Amino acid sequence: MSANTLQERLRAGQHCVNGWLTLPSPFVAETMAQAGWDSLTIDLQHGLQDYASAVALIQALQRYAVVPLVRVPSNEPGVIGKVLDAGAWGVICPMINTVQEARAFARACHYPPLGSRSYGPIRARSYGGKQPYHEIANDQMLVLAQIETREAVEHAADILEVPGISGIYIGPNDLGLSLGLPPTLDREDPEILAIYSRLLTETRRRGRVAGIHNAAPAYATRMIAMGFQLVTVASDLGLLAGAARQTVESMR
Amino acid sequence: MSANTLQERLRAGQHCVNGWLTLPSPFVAETMAQAGWDSLTIDLQHGLQDYASAVALIQALQRYAVVPLVRVPSNEPGVIGKVLDAGAWGVICPMINTVQEARAFARACHYPPLGSRSYGPIRARSYGGKQPYHEIANDQMLVLAQIETREAVEHAADILEVPGISGIYIGPNDLGLSLGLPPTLDREDPEILAIYSRLLTETRRRGRVAGIHNAAPAYATRMIAMGFQLVTVASDLGLLAGAARQTVESMR
Amino acid sequence: MSANTLQERLRAGQHCVNGWLTLPSPFVAETMAQAGWDSLTIDLQHGLQDYASAVALIQALQRYAVVPLVRVPSNEPGVIGKVLDAGAWGVICPMINTVQEARAFARACHYPPLGSRSYGPIRARSYGGKQPYHEIANDQMLVLAQIETREAVEHAADILEVPGISGIYIGPNDLGLSLGLPPTLDREDPEILAIYSRLLTETRRRGRVAGIHNAAPAYATRMIAMGFQLVTVASDLGLLAGAARQTVESMR
Amino acid sequence: MSANTLQERLRAGQHCVNGWLTLPSPFVAETMAQAGWDSLTIDLQHGLQDYASAVALIQALQRYAVVPLVRVPSNEPGVIGKVLDAGAWGVICPMINTVQEARAFARACHYPPLGSRSYGPIRARSYGGKQPYHEIANDQMLVLAQIETREAVEHAADILEVPGISGIYIGPNDLGLSLGLPPTLDREDPEILAIYSRLLTETRRRGRVAGIHNAAPAYATRMIAMGFQLVTVASDLGLLAGAARQTVESMR
Amino acid sequence: MSANTLQERLRAGQHCVNGWLTLPSPFVAETMAQAGWDSLTIDLQHGLQDYASAVALIQALQRYAVVPLVRVPSNEPGVIGKVLDAGAWGVICPMINTVQEARAFARACHYPPLGSRSYGPIRARSYGGKQPYHEIANDQMLVLAQIETREAVEHAADILEVPGISGIYIGPNDLGLSLGLPPTLDREDPEILAIYSRLLTETRRRGRVAGIHNAAPAYATRMIAMGFQLVTVASDLGLLAGAARQTVESMR
Amino acid sequence: MSANTLQERLRAGQHCVNGWLTLPSPFVAETMAQAGWDSLTIDLQHGLQDYASAVALIQALQRYAVVPLVRVPSNEPGVIGKVLDAGAWGVICPMINTVQEARAFARACHYPPLGSRSYGPIRARSYGGKQPYHEIANDQMLVLAQIETREAVEHAADILEVPGISGIYIGPNDLGLSLGLPPTLDREDPEILAIYSRLLTETRRRGRVAGIHNAAPAYATRMIAMGFQLVTVASDLGLLAGAARQTVESMR
Repeated sequence: MSANTLQERLRAGQHCVNGWLTLPSPFVAETMAQAGWDSLTIDLQHGLQDYASAVALIQALQRYAVVPLVRVPSNEPGVIGKVLDAGAWGVICPMINTVQEARAFARACHYPPLGSRSYGPIRARSYGGKQPYHEIANDQMLVLAQIETREAVEHAADILEVPGISGIYIGPNDLGLSLGLPPTLDREDPEILAIYSRLLTETRRRGRVAGIHNAAPAYATRMIAMGFQLVTVASDLGLLAGAARQTVESMR
Repeated sequence: MSANTLQERLRAGQHCVNGWLTLPSPFVAETMAQAGWDSLTIDLQHGLQDYASAVALIQALQRYAVVPLVRVPSNEPGVIGKVLDAGAWGVICPMINTVQEARAFARACHYPPLGSRSYGPIRARSYGGKQPYHEIANDQMLVLAQIETREAVEHAADILEVPGISGIYIGPNDLGLSLGLPPTLDREDPEILAIYSRLLTETRRRGRVAGIHNAAPAYATRMIAMGFQLVTVASDLGLLAGAARQTVESMR
Repeated sequence: MSANTLQERLRAGQHCVNGWLTLPSPFVAETMAQAGWDSLTIDLQHGLQDYASAVALIQALQRYAVVPLVRVPSNEPGVIGKVLDAGAWGVICPMINTVQEARAFARACHYPPLGSRSYGPIRARSYGGKQPYHEIANDQMLVLAQIETREAVEHAADILEVPGISGIYIGPNDLGLSLGLPPTLDREDPEILAIYSRLLTETRRRGRVAGIHNAAPAYATRMIAMGFQLVTVASDLGLLAGAARQTVESMR
Repeated sequence: MSANTLQERLRAGQHCVNGWLTLPSPFVAETMAQAGWDSLTIDLQHGLQDYASAVALIQALQRYAVVPLVRVPSNEPGVIGKVLDAGAWGVICPMINTVQEARAFARACHYPPLGSRSYGPIRARSYGGKQPYHEIANDQMLVLAQIETREAVEHAADILEVPGISGIYIGPNDLGLSLGLPPTLDREDPEILAIYSRLLTETRRRGRVAGIHNAAPAYATRMIAMGFQLVTVASDLGLLAGAARQTVESMR
Repeated sequence: MSANTLQERLRAGQHCVNGWLTLPSPFVAETMAQAGWDSLTIDLQHGLQDYASAVALIQALQRYAVVPLVRVPSNEPGVIGKVLDAGAWGVICPMINTVQEARAFARACHYPPLGSRSYGPIRARSYGGKQPYHEIANDQMLVLAQIETREAVEHAADILEVPGISGIYIGPNDLGLSLGLPPTLDREDPEILAIYSRLLTETRRRGRVAGIHNAAPAYATRMIAMGFQLVTVASDLGLLAGAARQTVESMR
Repeated sequence: MSANTLQERLRAGQHCVNGWLTLPSPFVAETMAQAGWDSLTIDLQHGLQDYASAVALIQALQRYAVVPLVRVPSNEPGVIGKVLDAGAWGVICPMINTVQEARAFARACHYPPLGSRSYGPIRARSYGGKQPYHEIANDQMLVLAQIETREAVEHAADILEVPGISGIYIGPNDLGLSLGLPPTLDREDPEILAIYSRLLTETRRRGRVAGIHNAAPAYATRMIAMGFQLVTVASDLGLLAGAARQTVESMR
């Protein structure tokens, strides 16, 4: 998939079902792609991925109608530039807690004058059809700031104002920890659901995208109903571990 | 796991639940191991594995109470020796159709005088506790001839007589193709179930092990009831693909 | 490319321009694919490829309209099965000198009843659209016997009669060596051009495919005019080495 | 080894013998582990390791009774989080020269409220037995600030006060360079031995751990006597190079 | 090549022809080396390289009379130290826009007292002949600040004054973008040529080195005439892509 | 080292000190090379090597004055051709027990008319200086048949007569096993020493090379005195394991 159909869907107001790739295996990525996700996010933060595996996974994914995103390990322009050059159509950056951090992140994702991304789209160059890649990249790139601390929630409205930020992506595990709660997904804590609600309001007001990390289809479906447009439903690892456990248990 | 507990269980008449590793990812292997299989077979024939991935997977598995087996791509002594030296506690060899092929396979798996395996157990050496590895290897090694053609079925009784062959492992896909039937697992063709029955009789008569490749717990459970001791129930790939498909479908 | 468009073109009597992949780098393969070859052959014999790199290259190629072929290192059914399962749409096997060797090669490439290929198309499974892969594979697979010794030339007519052999592929380097001549491509030795002519006659008579390995477009074009349908024109390595040498020389 | 027995030993006042892994080879790590070290440190700074090799080494080590530590290349939260998630039970961070740097390092190593480590212990999750990993991680993690400049020595007392810092680890090469002396280990410079003495006093006063990098058993033994609890004695590379040189010399 | 002959040539006032390595394949590097470049730069910023591939490429290059340089992805001391320890004889750092950034870069490249590079030249140690590596490294290392924004041009004179900076390297793509022009190499924009001229004057005045990235021999030759000493003429990727395209086109 | 200086030394009647590479790490190979061995043998049979690691090791070795040899896993022409093309200057083939096997081995190692090696020396091509590689390869290649069974001893004289076989290499472990003795190196069994003596006589009579695998310098020195020209003294693995064990023991 060399066009960012995810961006098109989001701009059309549709929701998108995202899968999570933690396993550094291109064939795992192909197998996930065959299941029909709208996008697949290669996780360089908590997944077992590194830059080399990200490249191999993006290559393997491009036979399929799925959009490759990357979550980077930290807000470091070197790695952000590298995954964009390799062909990611979007980046999720963890721990964007302040406007300054959001600005640095946006700069790293966009060519001048919007940002300061360095030119050299070694694989992404081939995405440009009639137009050169660098003329479409800033418009097409999905740039999601991960909101996952109390501090980030406080600054979320301002973060959403930063030019070049497409939207936010909520990390429920870390948000819980930051608030003194255990790290889990698919949360029912009223305090946290209230935060989700406020963040959705702020996002909608600015016409930006809100995404959230979930652990199961039922909860993800609720989150879509609540207003989230980009919902992660499962990871390769979680799907495999769950299915393997069930199978062995059914034999005992 | 540095002792061949699978061999012990089989000799004690217990059945064993085997998983199948087709993905060349050590962390997939760890994830599978955590599900509690008795053994896991690294598939160098139809899986995406090669020797280097087999070594990495065996290393990753050895923290867990699971016995590593390998299916080799063909009856070639070079690769058989290499996976044994790397620490496989058993080998499944595809397409053993004749007694001559079974003898060559058994020779490749055992040290003299039983066979002609060359000495140099680079990783397996550490399996020897009080006794040196080469003194226990011939006794502990699980050597399974894959029966998967009409010709193999005809020669199965003689194959089971070959010294150093621990038993047989049925490949239903290829057995079907060989008989002019489509390639599937968990078969209900009366002709094939009759073959299973005869093969079990021949195996039991000689106190050897019978194994079979299956696609689902229910059928595998039937096979145990029928007399198979080693049942493969699922592969990493099948589990992942199935769970991913279900999850995406539940979101549409 | 998940359909074997090369097979279609050859059956329609068209010629095909093939490139050669010796470098175990998926991005080299992508770069070659962008140049517009009809097919690209991953060379596991003299190239620096192995099975793992072949898988990565096939994955990288499948975004492009190019058909992946593999040259295997020798006539060994284990490796032939593995590259077909990984998604090669054709195999070139070196040093097919006798009818017996051609039969063994054809058996390894085809499912029963035509051959004895074992079932388990781990990646190739996805090539089947409406029809299952195993129902189209025997018909679609391109199976080319490399003719590159005096002995092979003598047996070529009989080799072309072997069911499941799609045609022949000439290796001018080794053919030269076998005849006491230096190893070169794009040969002008009358003795060898006469051999080409005879081989083309035998191939055409049986409606099979004739291919040949060349080093430059001009000679490859002559070979098309002579009747060869599949012409290899250049390798990634040769193209890179030539361009680098020219560039440095132009700076001195 | 999924419990941090090193932490237990250190808290019980015992000394620990640490080996150093510079070679990105899981089997080198296994070979080192079989020698009986208390802990092995994977060196991502000056060793030839990267994140991918660190994961493979930790996987290979976990069959053995040895605790895996990692030295990171710099005080960057992305890589620190990644090696902890992969299963390191401790981190040594080079060039901690100021209290600010020590605080940033401690934050990266611990979950809230002590720090700001992001949740997602992809491999380390399996370390939790009865208790979830995130409830034991902050207590169990060994967080060592490398003291290796004049500036660091000046700030060492304050660095040792930083919550979440377990102790210090002395780098004699860089400490020498920083003081205008040549880079060597096992130093006899009175000035430097006096620094060691002062650092030990500061460490002991606060009940923290002091470690040091050495090149030979005799000197390491002196350092234990002097009060260091964690002594690195040799690296895989040094051991191999020394033994190879001796062997070849004995043949000349 | 274990001596920095590039440094010698530059100090002797000679120009140097540099090639660019974007493909993470050691044999591509060998093939490039055989073409006779003075130096080859492994690109970790926009190339598909990472640290592991850089090590493999440097190892492969050292049989040849070519000097290995590295362009790092960003001004981060961890990765700079790692590539120097692996054996790079020079580093190009992108986006050096201010004197502060230049100072941090220079510190990361040099041992005290000039900088704060940490000692541990795991592979580079072997470069020292009679003198230990750490005694020659600061003098021999080529440290090039990439000038590629309007801001960098303004500060270039001061950047050239920073001790430990060997010179500058111009990135025409990003310089263009920064000035509101399209990203291309081999530029003819009068505004940019005037900048080149000013930068050359500032560099010459201080006896430093000026380098520039080009796309073709003719333009690179002009740049030498203009005063640039280090000219990059082509990349492995560009050479391969161009030669492949021409070859296929000549067959259509 | 691109000339086969080992072959020169052996023809001059000198003995050669060989090291053994079992660890698939190019930097281990470099470290071994720095110790000064005459040759280093990459072990694809019992070592953890495969073809890809062999290529990387040969690349890393070629900066040093050491000759790369390979022991292949079995007498299979595919892998023999591949390691020669990659740049091995000699091959040791295990389990050459008969003249037929020796002939097949010799054919696989040499170009016509001496053998049937296929042309395509992808890396080795660069070894040719003034003369093309294929004109020197047959003369320069060291082709050693491993004698390690009772059967091989019986046929050794005839094996030594096979054109293209350079000599023999004794495997004491397997020779012991074949004779009903335990597998060890550096043997004192009179029966085996008598075999060594007879084999040396047969080898010397024909002007061929005799080599032997040893575990320690003292025994290897005795073997040189006895008449062996190529003595393996130690492996990377054995050196590392021994040195690590001694170091840890000296700390307990």
